[in-house]
Amino acid sequence: MPRYKLTLEYDGTAYVGWQAQDNGASIQGALTDAIAAFAGERVAVYGAGRTDAGVHALGQVAHVDLAKQWDNDTVRDAVNFHLRPQPIAVLAAERVAADFEARFSAIKRHYLYRIANRRADLTLNLDRVWRVPRPLDAAAMHHAAQLLIGRHDFTTFRAAECQAKSPVKTLDRLAVLRDGEEIRIETSARSFLHHQVRSMVGSLVHVGDGKWSAGDLEAALVALDRSRCGQVAPPHGLYLVRVEY
Amino acid sequence: MPRYKLTLEYDGTAYVGWQAQDNGASIQGALTDAIAAFAGERVAVYGAGRTDAGVHALGQVAHVDLAKQWDNDTVRDAVNFHLRPQPIAVLAAERVAADFEARFSAIKRHYLYRIANRRADLTLNLDRVWRVPRPLDAAAMHHAAQLLIGRHDFTTFRAAECQAKSPVKTLDRLAVLRDGEEIRIETSARSFLHHQVRSMVGSLVHVGDGKWSAGDLEAALVALDRSRCGQVAPPHGLYLVRVEY
Repeated sequence: MPRYKLTLEYDGTAYVGWQAQDNGASIQGALTDAIAAFAGERVAVYGAGRTDAGVHALGQVAHVDLAKQWDNDTVRDAVNFHLRPQPIAVLAAERVAADFEARFSAIKRHYLYRIANRRADLTLNLDRVWRVPRPLDAAAMHHAAQLLIGRHDFTTFRAAECQAKSPVKTLDRLAVLRDGEEIRIETSARSFLHHQVRSMVGSLVHVGDGKWSAGDLEAALVALDRSRCGQVAPPHGLYLVRVEY
Repeated sequence: MPRYKLTLEYDGTAYVGWQAQDNGASIQGALTDAIAAFAGERVAVYGAGRTDAGVHALGQVAHVDLAKQWDNDTVRDAVNFHLRPQPIAVLAAERVAADFEARFSAIKRHYLYRIANRRADLTLNLDRVWRVPRPLDAAAMHHAAQLLIGRHDFTTFRAAECQAKSPVKTLDRLAVLRDGEEIRIETSARSFLHHQVRSMVGSLVHVGDGKWSAGDLEAALVALDRSRCGQVAPPHGLYLVRVEY
């Protein structure tokens, strides 16, 4: 059975998230249907990360096993054809070795969180960024963010329903960059806990608007207490940018 | 009567364009209604440029005369309140002199045209960029574009219904820049003819995909013949970025 790696882009706004669920349309379900329409078989679609409802992807990765071997570009174009008009697209399809696992072979995941730091309501970026009207000090946010880099117990920044065996993760990068009214938070790690990025971003916004000092952020981290998380940033500013193998 | 300058951002997708018309919702109409709801009077809203249906704005400018004097930020926030949930926002409101005219005081208009040069269907950028699947040579497009700079009769790149008195305009800038899969075309002039930017972009895409040489573009320009325009790029890739006074 030939295995294919799919690189995916999607607008998560109208979906219950990556994972198939009973309560609405999922990205995984839409892909399963499109692949069935193309290849004539319902196959399991395994993703690198379970993005939540409203979270977007610029480079999610999935793998599927198909009965027949197809040309890479045929897989990409045919799945895209059957995905229309849904806002999900296969950017690339690639035949990979049988031991490639979208989730377990990943060595690094890169996320982006976008904030529009402005008073005016959103128009073109509605459901694409988190609007924060209060002026944020991005330099202070970046400075504080560096305290989270490295290997830590991230219990404070972990959702109650997180299924990871351990709350200990190694954060490789957490950069806060301002570009005009937009603040971009870029973060990388081998893997993240459930809601970890949104929890870190929400707490960094407390630093940015002066509610917290960098020391307060560090105290929250070492408290290992979910109730000390500042706030959880909304899903619609979050993008799974790239998965490295 | 105090006059206010409004700087506007909008998603033009669901509108018939800037100008109030009988056949659907317009940006001008939405602003007129929101100002009436706030200030209690229906006043004329004058725009710097009449964007077409589907065309977006990052910095359209309008002026209005209100009976009463208000704080700038109050005008901005109150009009935004009454515009909700429409994808139109006042980025800034500013009291200006009585002789300021959004349209006639403008000394330069800046537009951006966005192309996604890729095979895969659009997801997050649906209605925000023009997808062109064939590979485009952005450097060749930029090189050819320089032939359009300066004072010319732009009859070839002018809509039949254009109401300008003269087809002669001075084009100050037309730059074609590639950023990954995105091609950005930035152009500036004191004023443009109706459909001029979209007509130039459509013809430049013929250069980018090898259908036309730079010489073909120049021949189309000097032919002064609308039927020689390559194609008119769709509205949803076009943005009115900024108006200078």
